[in-house]
Amino acid sequence: MAMLLLKRLAKEHEDYIKQQVHVKNPYLDSMEEDILYHFSLSTKTHNLPEMFGDIKFVCVGGSANRMKAFAHFIHQELNVPGNPDDIQDICEGTDRYSMYKVGPVLSLSHGMGVPSISIMLHELIKLLHHAHCQDVVLFRLGTSGGVGLNPGTVVITEKAVDYSFRPQFEQVVLGKVITRSTELDEEVASELLQYASELESFPTVIGNTMCTHDFYEGQGRLDGALCSFSHEEKLEYLKKAYEAGVRNIEMESTVFAAMCRVCGLKAAVVCVALLNRFEGDQITSSHEVLVEYQQRPQILVAYFIKKRLGLIP
Amino acid sequence: MAMLLLKRLAKEHEDYIKQQVHVKNPYLDSMEEDILYHFSLSTKTHNLPEMFGDIKFVCVGGSANRMKAFAHFIHQELNVPGNPDDIQDICEGTDRYSMYKVGPVLSLSHGMGVPSISIMLHELIKLLHHAHCQDVVLFRLGTSGGVGLNPGTVVITEKAVDYSFRPQFEQVVLGKVITRSTELDEEVASELLQYASELESFPTVIGNTMCTHDFYEGQGRLDGALCSFSHEEKLEYLKKAYEAGVRNIEMESTVFAAMCRVCGLKAAVVCVALLNRFEGDQITSSHEVLVEYQQRPQILVAYFIKKRLGLIP
Repeated sequence: MAMLLLKRLAKEHEDYIKQQVHVKNPYLDSMEEDILYHFSLSTKTHNLPEMFGDIKFVCVGGSANRMKAFAHFIHQELNVPGNPDDIQDICEGTDRYSMYKVGPVLSLSHGMGVPSISIMLHELIKLLHHAHCQDVVLFRLGTSGGVGLNPGTVVITEKAVDYSFRPQFEQVVLGKVITRSTELDEEVASELLQYASELESFPTVIGNTMCTHDFYEGQGRLDGALCSFSHEEKLEYLKKAYEAGVRNIEMESTVFAAMCRVCGLKAAVVCVALLNRFEGDQITSSHEVLVEYQQRPQILVAYFIKKRLGLIP
Repeated sequence: MAMLLLKRLAKEHEDYIKQQVHVKNPYLDSMEEDILYHFSLSTKTHNLPEMFGDIKFVCVGGSANRMKAFAHFIHQELNVPGNPDDIQDICEGTDRYSMYKVGPVLSLSHGMGVPSISIMLHELIKLLHHAHCQDVVLFRLGTSGGVGLNPGTVVITEKAVDYSFRPQFEQVVLGKVITRSTELDEEVASELLQYASELESFPTVIGNTMCTHDFYEGQGRLDGALCSFSHEEKLEYLKKAYEAGVRNIEMESTVFAAMCRVCGLKAAVVCVALLNRFEGDQITSSHEVLVEYQQRPQILVAYFIKKRLGLIP
């Protein structure tokens, strides 16, 4: 009897040291049903542990087409059996997000901007919790504007910063503003940087990523419907950003970093720069060039996943 | 000669009093090309005046499927010649937004949240400007959480307010926060209310709409991955909102109102409440019921358009 108890305690301890997904909501486990509305999934209608229990890597990105392409790519890279054309959109009951599962990898879209990715993250973290997933690493694979970088350069985010270059995210809770840290996992970031140098396929840097709530005025673009500043003022702002370590600008990294951190999820942001914002505002590269650029974060993260799975020595 | 000059002046005056779309950007007209990147359109590759010059009504909503359904619905309502199945997605070169044109009506999607709709609005307003559109009315047809309203009630927005119930929108411009008014067109709102009472099809009210940057913590939901407040604190916040005239909560109205106002566009927000937030947080109605609810703002705005076009006496 004592032996059995000891064995059970040892097992519980082993489970405990595995990295769990921590929802920070005392009400969740007492809910009879949890409808993940924007995924068109529910704990009552879907067996989430069976569907998602083996997930170890979650890759998210803005565009549904891009995340479908990534699902096909990782299917090939991991040599997963079956026809890639059979990969179904798990969220096909809604057009809010698209979600694909390939072996231990989940690929899903989050739309554009902090609010859109935040809805997705709430429901994703609940999904991982309901499915009893463990040791999950999250990646945001994105596109961005480069700050002092050549187009096509891949940026691994060191710190996600706001419009004042602070590593924090402001969240409104019941009408009050609270501040959350946006620190990302250092180990995953440096592992990614190491793999980029092994790959030798494209320029890759580590640097801060500025997250804005707008593509035009907030990022200092001169080509929006509204523009109240001069070319010189724009360059001055971008220069200040560069001096604060900012190497690229996108629209989701702070809330991604903040929510993953609070919920004990290791996370990294890997974005390609589509242009150098010191040179211009419009994205003028050809469709083919842009498609190739967008594959770069995918190639790097696929390499990481293969390393972790022991498919590359 | 004097006669000709007088005629030209009279013509110019006539054009002047027509409501133009005002971009507020001195650089725009000197650009050789304007790439509307997230629409996959450009002033060089597309004849925007020919494609869009006759637009008088722009209807926007979060979901691409819903805005496609609205294009089909308005095709039928306006008796536009041709097969509705031939209506093409004008933005098919990208998956960021979907756009459909039916006679003088443009129907397009904007995704979820302020940043996502803000990118769309910048590019839409530039499109209307490049196409020399005049006298355009914009509608946001949305879904929302009701505050003290039965599910299915349609809310016409009086004022779009922020999380502190202030009718303003905070925009970051080059790292500085500026504030814009979110007043909407009173005439269009009262006309809509009048038509709702003529239709007698569903309950419709006019009230303030609170716009948040998050679906869970910012709206006081107890069912997110993160929740740090009690049921009582949630109800207290919703009660305060109700007392400030808030009748529904969504995620796009403040920037929609602010940008339309700055650019001289008449605009209205018409959202259906999918649930009463005093009663709960999860959207539990059946798919069929939700689809019917989502048609209600479409029916009301289609009636407005038919009235304006003289198709209804």
